[in-house]
Amino acid sequence: MTEELLIFVNGERASSVHAMDRGLQYGDGVFRTMKVRNAAVRWWADQYQKLSEDCAALGISPPEERLLLSEVNQIVGFSGVGVVKVIVTRGAGQRGYAISTKLMPTRIVMGLPPTGRENLEVRVRWCDLRLSHQPKLAGVKHLNRLENVLARSEWDDADIAEGLIQDEEGNVICGTITNLIIVEQGKFITPDLSYCGVAGVARERIIKTAQRLGQPVFVEKISRERLMAADEVLLCNSLVDVWRVAELEEKHWPDSGWAEKLRNWLNENN
Amino acid sequence: MTEELLIFVNGERASSVHAMDRGLQYGDGVFRTMKVRNAAVRWWADQYQKLSEDCAALGISPPEERLLLSEVNQIVGFSGVGVVKVIVTRGAGQRGYAISTKLMPTRIVMGLPPTGRENLEVRVRWCDLRLSHQPKLAGVKHLNRLENVLARSEWDDADIAEGLIQDEEGNVICGTITNLIIVEQGKFITPDLSYCGVAGVARERIIKTAQRLGQPVFVEKISRERLMAADEVLLCNSLVDVWRVAELEEKHWPDSGWAEKLRNWLNENN
Repeated sequence: MTEELLIFVNGERASSVHAMDRGLQYGDGVFRTMKVRNAAVRWWADQYQKLSEDCAALGISPPEERLLLSEVNQIVGFSGVGVVKVIVTRGAGQRGYAISTKLMPTRIVMGLPPTGRENLEVRVRWCDLRLSHQPKLAGVKHLNRLENVLARSEWDDADIAEGLIQDEEGNVICGTITNLIIVEQGKFITPDLSYCGVAGVARERIIKTAQRLGQPVFVEKISRERLMAADEVLLCNSLVDVWRVAELEEKHWPDSGWAEKLRNWLNENN
Repeated sequence: MTEELLIFVNGERASSVHAMDRGLQYGDGVFRTMKVRNAAVRWWADQYQKLSEDCAALGISPPEERLLLSEVNQIVGFSGVGVVKVIVTRGAGQRGYAISTKLMPTRIVMGLPPTGRENLEVRVRWCDLRLSHQPKLAGVKHLNRLENVLARSEWDDADIAEGLIQDEEGNVICGTITNLIIVEQGKFITPDLSYCGVAGVARERIIKTAQRLGQPVFVEKISRERLMAADEVLLCNSLVDVWRVAELEEKHWPDSGWAEKLRNWLNENN
């Protein structure tokens, strides 16, 4: 199926990138995955802002917004595209970690099928892998994703939608593809992402909407025990919106309605 | 210059890799850089063994040795090739971290110019970036190399050959492209790499030769203070052989002859 994908590389229809691209050589780049709805990518302004911030974190010049959006919109125009993925790398250069001033970033825009994972309730598990602390990369959606790959490789039961990951100190940080929000007596709590994890756009939108509605999301440490005792455990990202954790090993949570409420928040403001 | 490189991708002369390759998408792969000498890559057996071990660490099937070596030898046959780089990725697949059983690894063999960095004495500096602890990836030469990229981006003074990097606890681990060995009253010490860093082939060869000669290399923690007080600070990798640190900020070390000795050890046994 990879042959039939819709891909633009630096504005040209292409299926490949140069083997010397630093995205391949070192994972030296960032990415975004965006959901297509009503013939457009959802939350474009937020997505572009986060892409630019992540580029800045690595010292990569972000693509010009109008140019990137025109390519994204061309991709969205093809039938069957449900997800658009954008990758920006530092570009193709000579061997070696040093960053040449001659490097021109590589801009890849891909049209992909819909995820079809829009169920509201999920079963999840704990991952053994612990996220390492790297404050210089934490929060950034960069291309060094081996921790996520290893964590996701811990199970292959299709009934389990997601794995929860702790950091090296045992704090629960996220799922392999989602951010975490727990609810305790009506109070929202999300983990601090200044040492590891990715600060996703869906999480950010929920934080902003909650703030506006006078029900702030608190950034606090969440231990495994605290999570197990929460009234509700929610997972979010740009593709699945909000998942309610219904089952985690022996534990079952009844639906207290927060997942649907947060979904509505996410979708009211796009 | 990237256009003129000699590259084989899965045995075919090519300059590019599929945009859906997990090497690009997630840094999901491993690599080796090997020095060409006397019309062959040096230390092939060690290089292939390490490549296979690193593939195994990620659950990737390594390329068959005879096949890979025949491609490497074809590349070495072209004029001007001083370095061969081999990348093995998990292959090109659908979006998502989950590993499909249908994935076929991608094998990339590249011919590159000589490094021309075979000086014996170098000036180095300290890097601010600290390596994070990830025992599931430590020692492996995988494609998630943003920490090295960020560390290397801390200086652009061409007179400084290398930067020394500490881990999150302050132990000195390596340089951005080299392994570290210090000498204290004739005793060799190299850092433990079970939490971070890459266990390189040159370091491994020095450890084995030293053992054979009855002068073992001890694996111990090396603090910044311990390094500064060492009689000799040595850096090694497959391309530069052994560098003697002559200068580190205000500190100067006289040549006590160990670097040349270790170079000879490395080159006696290939």
